[in-house]
Amino acid sequence: MFVSELRCAVCGRAYASDEVAYTCPDCGQAGTLDVLYDIKALGAAVSRQDIARSADPTLWRYRPLLPLPAKAAVPPLAVGGTPLYNALRLAADLGLAQVWVKDDGRNPTGSLKDRASAVVVARAMAQGIEVVTTASTGNAAAALAGLAASVGLPAVIFVPASAPEAKIAQLLTYGAHVLLVQGNYDSAFDLAVQAAERYGWYNRNTGMNPYTVEGKKTVAYEIAEQLGWQTPDAVVLSVGDGNIISGVHKGFRDLLALGWIERMPRLIGVQADGSAACYQAWKRGQNPATMLPIASHTVADSIAADLPRDRVRAVRAVRETGGAFVSVPDDAILAGIPVLARLSGVFAEPA
Amino acid sequence: MFVSELRCAVCGRAYASDEVAYTCPDCGQAGTLDVLYDIKALGAAVSRQDIARSADPTLWRYRPLLPLPAKAAVPPLAVGGTPLYNALRLAADLGLAQVWVKDDGRNPTGSLKDRASAVVVARAMAQGIEVVTTASTGNAAAALAGLAASVGLPAVIFVPASAPEAKIAQLLTYGAHVLLVQGNYDSAFDLAVQAAERYGWYNRNTGMNPYTVEGKKTVAYEIAEQLGWQTPDAVVLSVGDGNIISGVHKGFRDLLALGWIERMPRLIGVQADGSAACYQAWKRGQNPATMLPIASHTVADSIAADLPRDRVRAVRAVRETGGAFVSVPDDAILAGIPVLARLSGVFAEPA
Repeated sequence: MFVSELRCAVCGRAYASDEVAYTCPDCGQAGTLDVLYDIKALGAAVSRQDIARSADPTLWRYRPLLPLPAKAAVPPLAVGGTPLYNALRLAADLGLAQVWVKDDGRNPTGSLKDRASAVVVARAMAQGIEVVTTASTGNAAAALAGLAASVGLPAVIFVPASAPEAKIAQLLTYGAHVLLVQGNYDSAFDLAVQAAERYGWYNRNTGMNPYTVEGKKTVAYEIAEQLGWQTPDAVVLSVGDGNIISGVHKGFRDLLALGWIERMPRLIGVQADGSAACYQAWKRGQNPATMLPIASHTVADSIAADLPRDRVRAVRAVRETGGAFVSVPDDAILAGIPVLARLSGVFAEPA
Repeated sequence: MFVSELRCAVCGRAYASDEVAYTCPDCGQAGTLDVLYDIKALGAAVSRQDIARSADPTLWRYRPLLPLPAKAAVPPLAVGGTPLYNALRLAADLGLAQVWVKDDGRNPTGSLKDRASAVVVARAMAQGIEVVTTASTGNAAAALAGLAASVGLPAVIFVPASAPEAKIAQLLTYGAHVLLVQGNYDSAFDLAVQAAERYGWYNRNTGMNPYTVEGKKTVAYEIAEQLGWQTPDAVVLSVGDGNIISGVHKGFRDLLALGWIERMPRLIGVQADGSAACYQAWKRGQNPATMLPIASHTVADSIAADLPRDRVRAVRAVRETGGAFVSVPDDAILAGIPVLARLSGVFAEPA
């Protein structure tokens, strides 16, 4: 394993990889930790050609770049390796030279969050953890429930009672223990933190567990590899907690550090008008660590977040890449679904 | 293209590949046509090693074995290449030595039927067809709508008004023209036949279009290749119209004829008690061509069929492989979903 240290995104303090499990003790929950690698050793051990030779189409083809001990078992569900489509008609419709669509809905439980849960569950197994937990509005919960079921690991999920019924049914079907919280995502988040602490469970909470980003970054690896290690000009992502944009940023940063790509794409974070805390902070030039909770409401339930848990790194991803945040109304989100479906064949959820 | 002829599954009469578009003119709708290949020429042109060298993980890796002209364009959606899981805990629970789960829900629109629609849409494009149509209770419709959308081909779908709303929404989102039929699947089927005839549309109707089986057979190719060209003892499939079991049978027959596998698996067709026409005919030793419609009703909407359209070949698949039909109540179908999900991590729909 090439992990060298964990480093706080707020204060920059470094920790040994086994010193802290979640966020920076000094900075609290805003202090999300970056997992850093010994890039020199990694670059000497593995090349793009080695990756290309892998017969494994899943995210484990990037295993040397992931935070797992050499012999650690990984969950059997096939996560990642999702298609990247050159969407010619969509590009024409948008007046752009090229638009590519990465369909991460093709993951086992239906979203990119399977990438995070795959890495978290693999780490849990390597550590002999007996129960995993998380709070989620839906997709991260499904991802943890599915990946945990695939290895027979009990999962306890805290879900706001307002989550869509179909998403709750998915969790129960996987055999997860579902606790409906009479409150919002943030209440569920705090309960998961307290329960994990009291009962010794391993907490996958997004933006708190440093390893979710390490799974999510693999989508950036795939985009780069699928484009022949060319970098797109911009990558456009929906943003709720900010953990996916942080993951994509991390992925491209790893590749840049390794010299496998030549430049960083601009990262464009898209938020719903009713859940636009990162957009607002970015627009005002505010320090994201000082963000205050809002009362989020959007039809795109998977990106509803009162206080984006990975806010510091999400804003950093946009600022450091010369990108931008955009905020869009719910009716534009709903109107975009059939446009994407009709012009690319990809059927996406609102988020 | 290595297609040599089309042959009626009822009377055995052979047709040139461009002589008949749908079923046998002599036998009517019961006379589904097998697409046969020049196996000698095919075997000389392509080997298992050639397939293994393909970098294409989709069903097009088997392109020489598919009914397409050499330079025909294919839809861009990534169909096939779905995972095959060695489900150890499920096997233990069932008291079996080995159980593998093929998760074809990982296809672009969520079901195996994408394989059929991919081949049908590719053939439609090769022939300069301007509109495609089908009747469906849901999955085949979604598959045609999605694949057609991916290439900008208009699709007209006839759907029983009783189909689940979410499945109808999926069609509309893809931009398909949806006609809700005040009647059952069989009425929708007949309307699609008449409309295709009157307006010159290309009809994908399952069990009528000879090429749906040619797409569906690729799941058998994948199972064989994923098992290192070993044949499983038995393949268990749900059966509605009978077109998937016919496709799997065709796939293994192709491989056996090519000498790429050494024996045929037993094919086990599972029907819902409320839609068990094939099971009943098989149990009574009846000639499947003489089957009469029943009034089907089952929670597994995707396998509800009053008169299975590919009944002759479905029963043939079971008889010729020494397999069996099984009929199960709806409550067992529903109870099976969480068992599969908890013991393998695969979340399946009732069908």
